[in-house]
Amino acid sequence: MSGQPPEDAAEAAARPRGRPRMVIDLDAVADAVAGLVIDGGDKAISIVGAAERLDVSRATLYRLVPTKEDLVGIMFERATRQQTEVMDEVIRSATTVRDKLIRLIEMQVEAAVRMRGYMPVFFGGEGLPADVFERWHVWSREYEATWHACVEEAMAEGVLEPADVVTTTRLLLGMCLWVSRWFRPEDGIETEHIARVAVSLILPGNA
Amino acid sequence: MSGQPPEDAAEAAARPRGRPRMVIDLDAVADAVAGLVIDGGDKAISIVGAAERLDVSRATLYRLVPTKEDLVGIMFERATRQQTEVMDEVIRSATTVRDKLIRLIEMQVEAAVRMRGYMPVFFGGEGLPADVFERWHVWSREYEATWHACVEEAMAEGVLEPADVVTTTRLLLGMCLWVSRWFRPEDGIETEHIARVAVSLILPGNA
Repeated sequence: MSGQPPEDAAEAAARPRGRPRMVIDLDAVADAVAGLVIDGGDKAISIVGAAERLDVSRATLYRLVPTKEDLVGIMFERATRQQTEVMDEVIRSATTVRDKLIRLIEMQVEAAVRMRGYMPVFFGGEGLPADVFERWHVWSREYEATWHACVEEAMAEGVLEPADVVTTTRLLLGMCLWVSRWFRPEDGIETEHIARVAVSLILPGNA
Repeated sequence: MSGQPPEDAAEAAARPRGRPRMVIDLDAVADAVAGLVIDGGDKAISIVGAAERLDVSRATLYRLVPTKEDLVGIMFERATRQQTEVMDEVIRSATTVRDKLIRLIEMQVEAAVRMRGYMPVFFGGEGLPADVFERWHVWSREYEATWHACVEEAMAEGVLEPADVVTTTRLLLGMCLWVSRWFRPEDGIETEHIARVAVSLILPGNA
């Protein structure tokens, strides 16, 4: 990624020497990489595999994404950007802290289910380029800090039992993130249902 | 392990052709394997490495534990046996379901912290011999069923908000198991403290 946001890199690489504008969408690239990981683990990440899924030539994809590390970086950017956007929206919304907490839990369960196939790549850190892993750590800390602020407010307002905020935040995040380990579409348990049960577990009388 | 419990295999292998009784304790072997995994990941599991940690010759260890798969099997047996023993004790104890639930949470957090280094070997399944992985699955299902029964009783008695028992059980287990991902001794957050916060989160007024 060499410092530039991938959108700019894509723009720049898109029209070398008068070629037609390249129309590969970075979100589509992120989906393709995620698909490779879901089907074959992090070892399955490759330009060739991603090009096949995107139905473009390898040469075309190489111009946009020169290395495997860049592919992982694009998946990372998309995963974290989506999550940050949803979280910012929740935090800025004009609602009670109780509702914000419920929305954060819903969002977190939904993200765990959506990203269940490639979360191990981030959490395990193996096969992850060092710069992406570092950015993941920075992002995780900021992300946890936002959760932390909401939990703290919930305790101050009596929505949650007063307790150590850091530990409470991590327990709540863990409860939601572990869903990525046991969720199976074939079980027929809906994401919304899981989130509702999680909310009723920590906020009795809310279901 | 070829079907025999490791204790019997150890006993049988211990005195070939009039040799003195072998005194390697299987719990010590389990600790040695766990230590290898904690320090170097599952790739670090080897007879040579375990022999070094146990301060016995490779030949001695080979007689007791012929393959790397047997080493992993011994670690697995120990981890699950300990946990089953503690859980059975909790379930059989003459106490309220509220107290049983609290004890299960404490036990689960404690286990997550103790086994944090090698839990990824079981949960990831990579590098795990097929028969050990299968036994792990069978064991996990039985283990979850015991938790499930306690959660169901807690809901029947109004200790927990009535909700889908399977989902509630998995959320509770996840909250505890994810501690293995974030626990760092250097943070100075005690295991007992984490368990207490977890209890106060789902059973307000209990702390």
